[in-house]
Amino acid sequence: MPWKLSARAEKMNPSAIREILKVTEKPNIISFAGGLPSSRTFPVEAFAEACAKVLRDDAPGALQYAASEGYGPLREAVAASLPWAVDASQVLITTGSQQGLDLVAKVLIDSGSRILVETPTYLGALQAFTPMEPQVVDVASDDKGVVVDDLAAKAADARFLYLLPNFQNPTGRSMSEARRTALLARAAELGLPLIEDNPYGDLWFDQPPPLPLSARHPQGCVYLGSFSKVLAPGLRLGYIVAPPVLFPKLLQAKQAADLHSPGFNQRMVAEVIKDGFLERHVPTIRALYKTQRDAMLAALAREMQGLGVQWNTPSGGMFLWARLPEGLSAIELLPRAVDKGVAFVPGAPFYAGPPDARTLRLSFVTASVAQIDTGIAALAAAIREARGA
Amino acid sequence: MPWKLSARAEKMNPSAIREILKVTEKPNIISFAGGLPSSRTFPVEAFAEACAKVLRDDAPGALQYAASEGYGPLREAVAASLPWAVDASQVLITTGSQQGLDLVAKVLIDSGSRILVETPTYLGALQAFTPMEPQVVDVASDDKGVVVDDLAAKAADARFLYLLPNFQNPTGRSMSEARRTALLARAAELGLPLIEDNPYGDLWFDQPPPLPLSARHPQGCVYLGSFSKVLAPGLRLGYIVAPPVLFPKLLQAKQAADLHSPGFNQRMVAEVIKDGFLERHVPTIRALYKTQRDAMLAALAREMQGLGVQWNTPSGGMFLWARLPEGLSAIELLPRAVDKGVAFVPGAPFYAGPPDARTLRLSFVTASVAQIDTGIAALAAAIREARGA
Repeated sequence: MPWKLSARAEKMNPSAIREILKVTEKPNIISFAGGLPSSRTFPVEAFAEACAKVLRDDAPGALQYAASEGYGPLREAVAASLPWAVDASQVLITTGSQQGLDLVAKVLIDSGSRILVETPTYLGALQAFTPMEPQVVDVASDDKGVVVDDLAAKAADARFLYLLPNFQNPTGRSMSEARRTALLARAAELGLPLIEDNPYGDLWFDQPPPLPLSARHPQGCVYLGSFSKVLAPGLRLGYIVAPPVLFPKLLQAKQAADLHSPGFNQRMVAEVIKDGFLERHVPTIRALYKTQRDAMLAALAREMQGLGVQWNTPSGGMFLWARLPEGLSAIELLPRAVDKGVAFVPGAPFYAGPPDARTLRLSFVTASVAQIDTGIAALAAAIREARGA
Repeated sequence: MPWKLSARAEKMNPSAIREILKVTEKPNIISFAGGLPSSRTFPVEAFAEACAKVLRDDAPGALQYAASEGYGPLREAVAASLPWAVDASQVLITTGSQQGLDLVAKVLIDSGSRILVETPTYLGALQAFTPMEPQVVDVASDDKGVVVDDLAAKAADARFLYLLPNFQNPTGRSMSEARRTALLARAAELGLPLIEDNPYGDLWFDQPPPLPLSARHPQGCVYLGSFSKVLAPGLRLGYIVAPPVLFPKLLQAKQAADLHSPGFNQRMVAEVIKDGFLERHVPTIRALYKTQRDAMLAALAREMQGLGVQWNTPSGGMFLWARLPEGLSAIELLPRAVDKGVAFVPGAPFYAGPPDARTLRLSFVTASVAQIDTGIAALAAAIREARGA
């Protein structure tokens, strides 16, 4: 075989989660594992109407090659939707916000350069950054996000700090107003750029989260947003909001990566959202997910009594973070849980540094309330069994 | 500003073509510049029916996160459509074939590693490869593609040779049967992997092109295909066929790049093509483009008499390659042509090495026959004027 792989390809590994999820592919399993929005929230009728309208009114435009920046009306709608002054010229439409991470990595990471991440952090971001061969350093984090006092020792020469301030994946935690203020002050002192990833920010349950970091310091932040959680992931549309100093390079990287995101999909979404649709639709998602979070919290309180399991209470988003009692490993627990008909994702793959093997992520949005009740009971049974083993 | 760009970002430049095309954005200009399929060929009705059917029958599947490999029935349809034995497990669906180039670059190119390209070659490939910082070496090429005898001196340690054997962008030329045989023999001797890009292969005018290189040596070739020229580019769907030794790494790179290509679009295309649609549809594209090529050849013969302009006769695809008389530069000619109402793309940006400044690319597929007549007359007038200047 004449093929010689690049050094970065040698470093790529199959997603740990992907491999783990293979054991969950048994029929009839209740899955808290995937980060899949509930398909009940997909506005199918609105999509069908928008498809028909786009193809009736502007098929040549929707089906032809198009500008790498994205479809003008969609860029304008994104800019108008954000809670700070954003010009449409700063908005780059991406093929899902995962592509935003790929473009950021290309434009900001050199082989060996240092980047900072939360502990734990979004696995997909680690996968997007890895091909550019950074040195990934994790910053101490608590239930309010990164611990600001841990930054000074780690920020020297760092290209950026990547973080998800709202309803983080995997932990579901959010940064408080005070923590955001402190972080921005310290980042400014240290000259540390921020990459703010906010796919879940609209999915709040009781009150909106504090303003994004980017709203407070737009020149020092790149902001990543997504339509995957408020409309549907299968259209693969997200966006980057970048300061003018970075925009042209991100655009060139975008053009080289896939020329542009599908113009047809961009027009569909622009058509669906143009008359305030999201203001009516997103509250229904919030209400559904809040009900399911409450069901999971109630089931945990009921089923985990006396087992020494800890968990948090996310105020939005899709995930809850739990920790097994001392001596148990989430990775070792998984096959036992699957045997009992329930799946989750162990926390370890989300750590850039040494993992806490007792942690696990539970999604409360894919399964129904009835499935949540059954699944958490099954999980408790697996833990009980593991403790006795 | 705290931002520090990566070395690769510093090397990225705005697409020369993009900048050049800005001067062509005057209203009422006849453009032979862009590589845009004729929107008359887009099967709008079939798309509309497919959208409605997909959303009616399988909205949750079409709109949810999906496998990075692509939609199974589409992978199977691609495998079945190729003229050699391809298993669906070797097919990776990409966000346009441009993304195939990005993934190939990530998996095979290290900073400073040597890659070989045709003279001239597809500019979008150079843009996709550049971020991985290769040393790009151009191989001598004639009207039948790469000159095989130029390979030995350049192939040492080369990661691959990238080429478009059919109706190449930008020249429109094709590799003969004999040249393909000779190339494969030499590549095997030299241990040189091939990246075969074939977006135009179905657009033949009189007879199908010779078998792809990948059909003859599947273990030594990566094959890139696209739906952009046979259905529509605005859906952004292409594919890679890779030998099993490379597939897992390309798949990991794909997952990190955008998780997966839009499942909705993949189902639309699978639905449209499932009953032999392309066998009825593609011949209509061939007939249209042949008519337009013939119109351009006739107009060139009529209008360029005595001007010392040379051009080739592509046997398929979208482009024709022309060469101005000695002393003229296509880049300098362009503003003069635009003043007269016609645009083209100068050849220089397509050269990885020293360019032939007299060359230019003419697309015969976007403009109508009447526009081709008017546009070529205007181009001749511009050349006449430039010769006199």
